[in-house]
Amino acid sequence: MERDDTKLQFDEKGNLRHLLSLKGLDATLLTELLDDAEGYLTAPGALPIRSQSLAGRTIGNLFFEPSTRTRASFELAGRRLGADVLNLDVNTSSRKKGESILDTIYTLEAMQVDVMVIRDASNGVPAYIARHVDDHVSVLNAGESDVSHPTQGLLDLLTIRQHNPDFKNLAVAIVGDIQHSRVAMSASEALQTMGVGELRMISPPALAPDADRFPGARIIDNLAEGLKDADVVMALRIQRERIGNLDGVPGIDEYFANYGVSHASMKFAKPNAIIMHPGPMNRGIEIEGSLADGPRSVITKQVTNGVAVRMAVLTRIGKIMSGL
Amino acid sequence: MERDDTKLQFDEKGNLRHLLSLKGLDATLLTELLDDAEGYLTAPGALPIRSQSLAGRTIGNLFFEPSTRTRASFELAGRRLGADVLNLDVNTSSRKKGESILDTIYTLEAMQVDVMVIRDASNGVPAYIARHVDDHVSVLNAGESDVSHPTQGLLDLLTIRQHNPDFKNLAVAIVGDIQHSRVAMSASEALQTMGVGELRMISPPALAPDADRFPGARIIDNLAEGLKDADVVMALRIQRERIGNLDGVPGIDEYFANYGVSHASMKFAKPNAIIMHPGPMNRGIEIEGSLADGPRSVITKQVTNGVAVRMAVLTRIGKIMSGL
Amino acid sequence: MERDDTKLQFDEKGNLRHLLSLKGLDATLLTELLDDAEGYLTAPGALPIRSQSLAGRTIGNLFFEPSTRTRASFELAGRRLGADVLNLDVNTSSRKKGESILDTIYTLEAMQVDVMVIRDASNGVPAYIARHVDDHVSVLNAGESDVSHPTQGLLDLLTIRQHNPDFKNLAVAIVGDIQHSRVAMSASEALQTMGVGELRMISPPALAPDADRFPGARIIDNLAEGLKDADVVMALRIQRERIGNLDGVPGIDEYFANYGVSHASMKFAKPNAIIMHPGPMNRGIEIEGSLADGPRSVITKQVTNGVAVRMAVLTRIGKIMSGL
Repeated sequence: MERDDTKLQFDEKGNLRHLLSLKGLDATLLTELLDDAEGYLTAPGALPIRSQSLAGRTIGNLFFEPSTRTRASFELAGRRLGADVLNLDVNTSSRKKGESILDTIYTLEAMQVDVMVIRDASNGVPAYIARHVDDHVSVLNAGESDVSHPTQGLLDLLTIRQHNPDFKNLAVAIVGDIQHSRVAMSASEALQTMGVGELRMISPPALAPDADRFPGARIIDNLAEGLKDADVVMALRIQRERIGNLDGVPGIDEYFANYGVSHASMKFAKPNAIIMHPGPMNRGIEIEGSLADGPRSVITKQVTNGVAVRMAVLTRIGKIMSGL
Repeated sequence: MERDDTKLQFDEKGNLRHLLSLKGLDATLLTELLDDAEGYLTAPGALPIRSQSLAGRTIGNLFFEPSTRTRASFELAGRRLGADVLNLDVNTSSRKKGESILDTIYTLEAMQVDVMVIRDASNGVPAYIARHVDDHVSVLNAGESDVSHPTQGLLDLLTIRQHNPDFKNLAVAIVGDIQHSRVAMSASEALQTMGVGELRMISPPALAPDADRFPGARIIDNLAEGLKDADVVMALRIQRERIGNLDGVPGIDEYFANYGVSHASMKFAKPNAIIMHPGPMNRGIEIEGSLADGPRSVITKQVTNGVAVRMAVLTRIGKIMSGL
Repeated sequence: MERDDTKLQFDEKGNLRHLLSLKGLDATLLTELLDDAEGYLTAPGALPIRSQSLAGRTIGNLFFEPSTRTRASFELAGRRLGADVLNLDVNTSSRKKGESILDTIYTLEAMQVDVMVIRDASNGVPAYIARHVDDHVSVLNAGESDVSHPTQGLLDLLTIRQHNPDFKNLAVAIVGDIQHSRVAMSASEALQTMGVGELRMISPPALAPDADRFPGARIIDNLAEGLKDADVVMALRIQRERIGNLDGVPGIDEYFANYGVSHASMKFAKPNAIIMHPGPMNRGIEIEGSLADGPRSVITKQVTNGVAVRMAVLTRIGKIMSGL
């Protein structure tokens, strides 16, 4: 993301208008968004919080890659705020007809769709769209290639803060296919802004990122070293097709033995360390199933926080729309 | 379904919490559900009954097999009770990514989806899910392999009761591919509980069920004998791919001649007998088209009753959720 | 469309009940619908107009051909009027199971779906359905083979009227694959009823329509001649598979040079002529991209008008349903 794209996220008064990346969101804004999100959490079994802060607005879910959880999370967040949510199965319609993505956006804009939630496999698409929409339209990045997934970064940040808000004294270890991970990118951006004590990116050498993509983070290829005294351990999903096929990436058993977040490997982390995963999980590959279901796992909490941070973001951009 | 699964449907106070099967629902409960459903019926052309009994609740439609009518029926039932309904096209997303079904459920639970409506081609999936969900979540079986389709059983029971509530003096004939029919299973369970006078399962020998699956029913392979003086005739859908291909199953013309519910074969039934079909119909194969559209057919009435019984079931489990 | 089908659109009091074609809608009714639609337009960025004129009603979107924009437009129109909207992905469910289209309709009717919005690739399907539905059900044609797309015709008419309401003095030029265009058919029907000054159908000879399909229109194969002093220029989408493959249809470059609506060819039209396109566009084939985005283009205005005319039509048929 270019510097201009970072600025592009704010209107002339400095209010958040698009959410394309967590770059450029300062600690104050991140904290406000997390605080707002906390207000949308309820006890298990209680009715979800609802408001009418987006009543009359229309959210378009444009997922050019398939997704259940993120699409559902945005849909529920929008509906619980009183918005209309339009799901567009973009694979099977306009794209078949060869329509350009901007023409799809202009069409939705003309139908008074105010918020475009975009997931796309190509780098730069959400910012490209944000540069072309009308003044009253907001663009939310719901997953962009391997570069950005900002609402995921926010929910990860909230989940870590719930465990321990003292970011400066935390060691966070992210394990897996760092090179291809938009989740690692957005989490890293958010954590660096909050002044995280230590950030470690652990992967087989073949899946290690370019060093300049994670400034301030340590790139590590040894799991024991990487997890040592960690407060937070985040396992990343690895694409099955990469395992054993990519040069230098071991087969499943070897991957799990060397890079799996397991009861065995968690012994290196702090005893109260939490375990995170963005889902969907490959149990037995990047994470041991019983650990994912155990008391240290905060994986379903992440999902709950996901709806809450999306409600917080939607409410904030909705206020700009209403000129409040 | 195991005995435990039957019990699993009720909470500790004995209230219906999940609907997995009609086994274990006694005549009192079945009657109450039908009575409640009657309250959701209106005259043709009138506005449907609406309430807010599920306001604030979220229903997840998880159909792992394609379906129009049952999915639409649950969706309309939920919305007319004020719930949010989330449709998940599960074939095209998580399952592609290899996520386990329980992880999908845990994810939805964490998003405060309170009711999971499940259709699955595998035996035991709804009960498996019910054993794993949180206390405040309900599971409704919307069609499970060839073993259970309880809301279909309820709508069939209601339709029969509207014709004649004196179950003890009724002869009900179910015709077709009994062996593979979850519709026959659930109808049979409900009718036996209500003390139906006579229950006959009519099919070519190759499609006859194991005798112990339908205790109390007569297994018959001659249509004239099976329909003799029947009050209710229910034709089942036969999968086209089974016709003429399965050993001992005749081709289309022969199937229709020997097992088709037709003007000719209905002469054996009582003159005022009603004709039922769960849909979608293969006209000219298991049922004669003009008969399906004729005055004795209650097929569209079944569909209307389907929305009503689903509203009744949803309202009942919603009361438990709210602690009423 | 037969004469009977034209009459079929009105109830016994002469009120519009189904919208199958613009044939048979007189100038008074067209004008009323456009006037009503104007009432649903707001300034860009403002909240869309909402009402409860269809509250309690259910709209079924049955698209047997894929569509993003028309489906979304009907969905938003319905929801902004307070209706429940049920999207049915008909390709992947009942039709796979071999259910007849009428059985699908009867099923939806029995679920109290009041408005059937139908898109189908076959000629005659909407009228066929309209002849079979219950008295309280309305059928709206959302695109039928190459013969009719009446809400598109209404939005085109509204867009032209916004440019210049003096239809009698307007020259309207429609350019492209006229032979296969339901858009051209419906626009032509509406414009003729309004007494348009001149209507010109421009296409390569191989894509020219039978002369009797567009009575009163001039069939032209020379673009310069066709656009001369035109007030309105409407480019039609051409199916890519027809270009260069159909006998007598030139390749892309030649098509654009000879039949493309471009800065070059627009010099023949009036200086203030507007440019229309039903979408989705093939930029660089039937229309020059920069022209589509330029000041004379009213293409996104057409989309906005599309939601408004659909709200107008739905409100009008909703009044009949309620006996008003």
